[in-house]
Amino acid sequence: MKRIKLVVAYDGTNYHGWQVQPREITIEGVLNEALTALTGEEIQVIGASRTDAGVHARGNVAVFDTESRIPGEKFSYALNQRLPEDVIIQDSCEVTADFHPRHCECRKTYEYTILNRTFPLPEYRNTAFFCYGDLDVERMDQAAKQFVGEHDFAAFCSAGAQVQSTVRTIYSVTVEREQPEVIRIRIRGNGFLYNMVRIIAGTLLEVGRGNLEVSKIADIIASKDRANAGPTAPAKGLKLMQIEYL
Amino acid sequence: MKRIKLVVAYDGTNYHGWQVQPREITIEGVLNEALTALTGEEIQVIGASRTDAGVHARGNVAVFDTESRIPGEKFSYALNQRLPEDVIIQDSCEVTADFHPRHCECRKTYEYTILNRTFPLPEYRNTAFFCYGDLDVERMDQAAKQFVGEHDFAAFCSAGAQVQSTVRTIYSVTVEREQPEVIRIRIRGNGFLYNMVRIIAGTLLEVGRGNLEVSKIADIIASKDRANAGPTAPAKGLKLMQIEYL
Repeated sequence: MKRIKLVVAYDGTNYHGWQVQPREITIEGVLNEALTALTGEEIQVIGASRTDAGVHARGNVAVFDTESRIPGEKFSYALNQRLPEDVIIQDSCEVTADFHPRHCECRKTYEYTILNRTFPLPEYRNTAFFCYGDLDVERMDQAAKQFVGEHDFAAFCSAGAQVQSTVRTIYSVTVEREQPEVIRIRIRGNGFLYNMVRIIAGTLLEVGRGNLEVSKIADIIASKDRANAGPTAPAKGLKLMQIEYL
Repeated sequence: MKRIKLVVAYDGTNYHGWQVQPREITIEGVLNEALTALTGEEIQVIGASRTDAGVHARGNVAVFDTESRIPGEKFSYALNQRLPEDVIIQDSCEVTADFHPRHCECRKTYEYTILNRTFPLPEYRNTAFFCYGDLDVERMDQAAKQFVGEHDFAAFCSAGAQVQSTVRTIYSVTVEREQPEVIRIRIRGNGFLYNMVRIIAGTLLEVGRGNLEVSKIADIIASKDRANAGPTAPAKGLKLMQIEYL
């Protein structure tokens, strides 16, 4: 028996999120199906991040155990033959049996994309939040820096999450205009609460629109009250870029 | 009666090209339908560029005549309410009755996108040609420069085109790595033959792979023989960026 780690990229548009659900098409579901067909074993992957419906990934991570003779690094090629074209394995390798994608310490990087112009563009319809009005990106970036450090992020967590602690460490947050009309929020941390990146994005959008002072971010964090933060930005703008294990 | 000019952006993935065809969904078809519903008149647009199935546009142009009282610049907003989300009007304005999008002199700019890495990425599956092997972008750019100027581009035209002359002027061609893994061919000219940009892209790909010498481009142009140029690169990598009228 060996344990295989997969790095998974997907366009989440046509999926009901990562986690298997009855009668819904999910990323985890199509991975299980392809692996079961490939190996002849009843395989269920364990995912690192259970992304919501409509959220995308460049580098989510999943593991599974198998008796298959296929070498670890060949699973990417073999699986990509069987997966739909919006789910593509980027890398595969054998890992030790004690490697667990959710319990091992890691750094996660997310990107949130905002299309900021007069009219939407068709090619961004599923991968960016469209925002018509002027956004002050410099102020958004100043506000973003207030999130860096170890904080109790209870104000940036949707209700219904079952976690023991709402303390997380953010290593960096940047807000940049990548093209004149595309704004990218990039955030790296040791873990994120439910909807945390989307609530941070929604709060930074309020700063960009001039509805919220840069200096208020620290107060909102300190309040630990979800009602004080901005709205949850739409799922389609969010992409899990990378998970680095330490 | 007034003539209205539209600037149209679309993701061509789900369309059988621009031109109306029986029992197929086309860009022209959805524009006619939306305009007819909006104005109550039987409207048929005239398009500048009849793009093929799968080709995208940021700035294709169409005109139509109407008795509607809607001001020219308001058509964009009114139409976007009625169009599918993969066809979005970027601008609208009234033009003189003698303006014809195909007969007036113009400059067209196209982009061809190549995703050059080990595995495809889901978000590029409909908008880039995926190429696994190493591509020498510097040599591609050198070869691209050979297309600049007024030439008979008969060697870069698919059979079946009905044109009086195959002479066209290319003002610029550039090949650049925009991100480490994304190569963009950008070409601007006074007009393009059927499949001309895709055949140029296919020929530049042969140069990038090392299958064709940079110096051979001039010979291929001079031969006026389609058989000497490279293959026609896939439609999905092509986007009509802009049409400038003089």
